[in-house]
Amino acid sequence: MHIPASDYPRIVIVGGGFGGVTLSRKLTQHKYQVVLIDRHNYHTFQPLLYQVATSGLEPDSIAFPLRSVPDENDHYIFRMAEVEAVDQKSNTISTSIGAIHYDHLILATGTKTNFFGNEKIERNALSMKSVPESLDIRSLMLQNLEKATITDNEKEQRKLMRIVMSGAGPTGVELSGAFAEFKKGILSSDYPDLNPDWMEIILLDGSDRVLSSMSEKASKKAEKYLKELGVTVMLDEMVIDYEDDVVSTKSGKEIDTATFIWSAGVTGNAPDGFSDDQLSEKGGRLLVDLFNKVKGTDNVYAVGDIALMKTDDYPDGHPQVAQPAIQQAQNVASNFARISKGKEPKPFSYFDKGSMATVGRNRAVADIKGFTLGGFWAWFAWLGVHLYFLVGVRNRIVVFLNWIYNYFNFDRAARLIIRPYKKETTAQAVSEITD
Amino acid sequence: MHIPASDYPRIVIVGGGFGGVTLSRKLTQHKYQVVLIDRHNYHTFQPLLYQVATSGLEPDSIAFPLRSVPDENDHYIFRMAEVEAVDQKSNTISTSIGAIHYDHLILATGTKTNFFGNEKIERNALSMKSVPESLDIRSLMLQNLEKATITDNEKEQRKLMRIVMSGAGPTGVELSGAFAEFKKGILSSDYPDLNPDWMEIILLDGSDRVLSSMSEKASKKAEKYLKELGVTVMLDEMVIDYEDDVVSTKSGKEIDTATFIWSAGVTGNAPDGFSDDQLSEKGGRLLVDLFNKVKGTDNVYAVGDIALMKTDDYPDGHPQVAQPAIQQAQNVASNFARISKGKEPKPFSYFDKGSMATVGRNRAVADIKGFTLGGFWAWFAWLGVHLYFLVGVRNRIVVFLNWIYNYFNFDRAARLIIRPYKKETTAQAVSEITD
Repeated sequence: MHIPASDYPRIVIVGGGFGGVTLSRKLTQHKYQVVLIDRHNYHTFQPLLYQVATSGLEPDSIAFPLRSVPDENDHYIFRMAEVEAVDQKSNTISTSIGAIHYDHLILATGTKTNFFGNEKIERNALSMKSVPESLDIRSLMLQNLEKATITDNEKEQRKLMRIVMSGAGPTGVELSGAFAEFKKGILSSDYPDLNPDWMEIILLDGSDRVLSSMSEKASKKAEKYLKELGVTVMLDEMVIDYEDDVVSTKSGKEIDTATFIWSAGVTGNAPDGFSDDQLSEKGGRLLVDLFNKVKGTDNVYAVGDIALMKTDDYPDGHPQVAQPAIQQAQNVASNFARISKGKEPKPFSYFDKGSMATVGRNRAVADIKGFTLGGFWAWFAWLGVHLYFLVGVRNRIVVFLNWIYNYFNFDRAARLIIRPYKKETTAQAVSEITD
Repeated sequence: MHIPASDYPRIVIVGGGFGGVTLSRKLTQHKYQVVLIDRHNYHTFQPLLYQVATSGLEPDSIAFPLRSVPDENDHYIFRMAEVEAVDQKSNTISTSIGAIHYDHLILATGTKTNFFGNEKIERNALSMKSVPESLDIRSLMLQNLEKATITDNEKEQRKLMRIVMSGAGPTGVELSGAFAEFKKGILSSDYPDLNPDWMEIILLDGSDRVLSSMSEKASKKAEKYLKELGVTVMLDEMVIDYEDDVVSTKSGKEIDTATFIWSAGVTGNAPDGFSDDQLSEKGGRLLVDLFNKVKGTDNVYAVGDIALMKTDDYPDGHPQVAQPAIQQAQNVASNFARISKGKEPKPFSYFDKGSMATVGRNRAVADIKGFTLGGFWAWFAWLGVHLYFLVGVRNRIVVFLNWIYNYFNFDRAARLIIRPYKKETTAQAVSEITD
């Protein structure tokens, strides 16, 4: 790979998510050559992907060009490439555009969708880890509504209008709430010849509650909000198959649907080249010490969802959300600065700012310092927090104005089928790009 | 095709451009069942496609859902379908989703890119008649810049950075101006390791001036503005081939480029089923009388770019731009209203509001009532006119704010490669969708 020469030691960062962006911004302020590698040329603000999928926002307002991340870019280099493997012995990584040598390597590659080995679900379901995948969801839902208008077979119409999601974590909850709002705000005005009752939104989960990573109180509230919005919540229902437009569960239920979205699990997205004792037994995460250094290495780090740091407070590691990624990246960056000044690095300690999920307009839940908030104020706090963490001033303004517009007009203006979703070809193309 | 029954006579409109949208809005106010058919589920504001192609705007701000076009939608029906042929005897059209009977048919299908039979250019060049095509241009240009950063071969870098356009009508002029601004505003900050001088923007035309449909004075001014922005304008140069990344002209010039955009001609986009004497000899347009009725028919109309109405003032037909389409659609709609009230229809008369093209910030040209305007005020008028004719209040606000942001920041925020452009597959997919 062609990289300009530099007198500074080279830090290669893989992945332009929350961790990678934070690291790039901080490390370029010090005497390092910083090389950021990502398969896309933009940062994706994953918490708002569901609004792209449900026609509320356009991709550009939740994406940010990775080339423009640091203010100072004298010793910042971005390369769009797929990282294949790490060679820990020669301090080299191999990528789709050639090999690159590192003095220090930081992996911030996050997670990918976990289908738990079920190939049929992997082949037939949609998932939502990237912008192209969320646009596929948008296109398929709108295409299915178009198809529903040209048949007068009730069973077929119901199948085309029904949306089923497996996995009631934040993604499943936020998506199903947003689909329910699409149904309320758009369906009867845009599709006067469809029976709105036939657009069923069904959220399944194998556990006994929604948002199982949050407090029980928050789960209860979220479930209540979902039901108020008209979402059918089915708990203790493990999906075991999806084929020929039928979702099957372990308990024997069968649900006809042309739109099935899988958000029931993730697994670490580590490149090849790590041994079994460097990886966690479950979840494919890289084991790191309190300085985010990967087990058994001197110059390889991992931050965020891909890293598993076992502490007394978090014996199973930190939650796989934005905050630990951002905070670990900040700590690693400041340790590099300390080392370059001859100081000792500091171990990581996590400051839990709480967690939140939104269900719909005026309806969200938040767990903050042992308290559970719900309703309008939690929703309002959710808006503020998401605007704050969105990358780029322009993006904040555009998202804010879109939200105001959508709020007062009950509208979803981006209901456009720009690239029609085609099962085989698109699924292949997307997996080439995103996996 | 499944269409709800109605007591009103059925008017089928094919094409949701300026003509189709105007017709749908007006005709739904009267006692007709209005069926609008388009291959996309959205109206495309074509005059701003070039800003999507050059990362200035996102698709949703220049597209509008066709299902939401009329305020009254009691007897409005939209169907997303490809129209294949018209059977004038049985008053039926066949489409990709089945046949539909009409009492009256109005064709507003516009034009498609004309490659004048050159299959190599058709296969290898990009064109820009739709949103997916303009996104392909954006992706390809950005992918080529990414590729340029990973080679140190100067010839290869220059080829990857050079952008060549054939056809200096409004599309070619506006595109090349916007690329020149991208180069000025973005290139050196985003790609510090590329030599900005190597990003050459070349605009070719077979005639002896740019904007040959406008006044000579406007052409001169536009050419001057293009040169000020750093665009290389080559006139009297007819492109005859594009293969293996080389553009060849009739005079023997050869230009290496990985990005070649063809905007050198259009031809009418008429469905099958019309006889040779109903079509114009050149340009594939449907011959219509002063009431926009297609020659030899009683209930088939054509409006806008697809229609050719020969008048004393316009012996070769009206210009193929938005205004004649909108005005003809208004006249046809008001004639339907008159007929339903037992009144005589009125012949069409064109009110020429002038024509304009923009080259870049503060630089545009306009021909209005025999006067030629240039510079800031023409540019300012261009902004106003385009905001006025953009469909949808939200779109106007979003575009306006994006323009203000881009103007003050010299930015192009949407420089994202969402769907990488792949020559074979995308070209096939696009032609399935758009042709």
